[in-house]
Amino acid sequence: MRFVSFTRDGAASWGRIGPDGAIIDLGAHETDLKSAIAAGKLSADLDGPSLARGEVRLLPIVPNPAKFLCVGHNYESHRVETGRDPTDHPSIFTRFADTLIGADDPIVRPTASTDLDYEAELAVVIGRGGRNIPEAEAMDHIAGYTCFNDASVRDWQWHSRQFTPGKNFPGTGPLGPELVTPDEIDDLPSVRVESVLNGTVMQSATLDHMLFPVPVIIAYISQFTPLAPGDVIATGTPGGVGAKRTPPVWMAPGDTIEVRISGVGTLSSTVVAEA
Amino acid sequence: MRFVSFTRDGAASWGRIGPDGAIIDLGAHETDLKSAIAAGKLSADLDGPSLARGEVRLLPIVPNPAKFLCVGHNYESHRVETGRDPTDHPSIFTRFADTLIGADDPIVRPTASTDLDYEAELAVVIGRGGRNIPEAEAMDHIAGYTCFNDASVRDWQWHSRQFTPGKNFPGTGPLGPELVTPDEIDDLPSVRVESVLNGTVMQSATLDHMLFPVPVIIAYISQFTPLAPGDVIATGTPGGVGAKRTPPVWMAPGDTIEVRISGVGTLSSTVVAEA
Repeated sequence: MRFVSFTRDGAASWGRIGPDGAIIDLGAHETDLKSAIAAGKLSADLDGPSLARGEVRLLPIVPNPAKFLCVGHNYESHRVETGRDPTDHPSIFTRFADTLIGADDPIVRPTASTDLDYEAELAVVIGRGGRNIPEAEAMDHIAGYTCFNDASVRDWQWHSRQFTPGKNFPGTGPLGPELVTPDEIDDLPSVRVESVLNGTVMQSATLDHMLFPVPVIIAYISQFTPLAPGDVIATGTPGGVGAKRTPPVWMAPGDTIEVRISGVGTLSSTVVAEA
Repeated sequence: MRFVSFTRDGAASWGRIGPDGAIIDLGAHETDLKSAIAAGKLSADLDGPSLARGEVRLLPIVPNPAKFLCVGHNYESHRVETGRDPTDHPSIFTRFADTLIGADDPIVRPTASTDLDYEAELAVVIGRGGRNIPEAEAMDHIAGYTCFNDASVRDWQWHSRQFTPGKNFPGTGPLGPELVTPDEIDDLPSVRVESVLNGTVMQSATLDHMLFPVPVIIAYISQFTPLAPGDVIATGTPGGVGAKRTPPVWMAPGDTIEVRISGVGTLSSTVVAEA
């Protein structure tokens, strides 16, 4: 099953993608997708009015996660290009929910910087919460997958060792377009994550190149913080980011950047300058 | 004026400290202190039932901040003891709100580690929100000050360069006991921040030793993320942390750790082992 969060005529709702590609509005059953996940309502049995894609504006898949955690340097190719030593544990930083945007929103290049970079990532949305989730049970805690572009303001990211500033400018976190339930993915390790800038493939790797696979990440994070339905974990980006090219490649107003994940979807964003 | 957040018979409220030291329950005027700040109701004019200190259980001063930001290495003495190079910008990391505890709650040493350290800090609570707040106006955006103990699980903090894991164990962020409005502080730079472990002073510095003073911090943070009423900024800790002593000093169950800030208050916590 595939789900979306959206607004229609300014009112927020959520829905399921029907067999004909239309959106079945399920807002009458739960306020939002996060509540639906918590209530165990990601079901094909629920029904509602059918909406055409053009009638809605997509929101971030989870517009209001209580926690949004990101994994840094989680592909060998990106670890090598950034010159980091191997570590025994994942590198974890966070985003505020107000950095997230939907698949219909543009990425905003802030006036504070021109060093705007892309990062294609698989995002995991937590279904069942928990603390100290064992690795062997971690996959049972996943509601689904979606695409994430961890668009990064590199000079601000490198102001100190802590990534917070460069990862938290408003309008830099496209998340979507659809939440894809785990049963739709045959073989997670062979799923391919790519970024495509103005038609050119910039990053491309399969998930089996992750240094810390999804269940390890969930187990690790849940040791220090409880996870809840609707929490999101961005699982890291492959090598090929713009900052590590010679010369560096920065996203500029007018660019189109896509995150393509096989079996999950394509998240396409244009870049605009901050108003 | 001085304000508190508390529960009484399990119900959450907030109030003002009256001239006799009693708590004037203002829960009838706004749901919580964050809403009261947003509504401009930190006023001596509001009245309510008087409660004795023993009738309530103090909550974190803001139990539900939308954003909780922390500044790392913001005193020269702590920068030197941690071996960090000087930087042109503050180091910023974040805490989830569910790490915060009240002045009546114990600090929880997790089963995952014994490397539990103290960090005495002045916390700033935002009154008026904003983006790109100029340094010269930053002080006008402050609702008040309180004490914070940024209790840190050091081995988890150092799993990678990102501090997130070691700063986000539940029960490690005492915040309180009182919110003190800026008019109560005569001269902010001369305010002294101290930690006292089982009666021994471990850290002691005045705020004029901050590398990035409060208005600089607010201006910097608001460049990359909008601030809102009730957001909290922990402004960093002086030298003298347990991790950098020889041998290291870790907090253990049964210990009492105080954060004392002149003119602001004393935040005293006991340490317990995770159940």
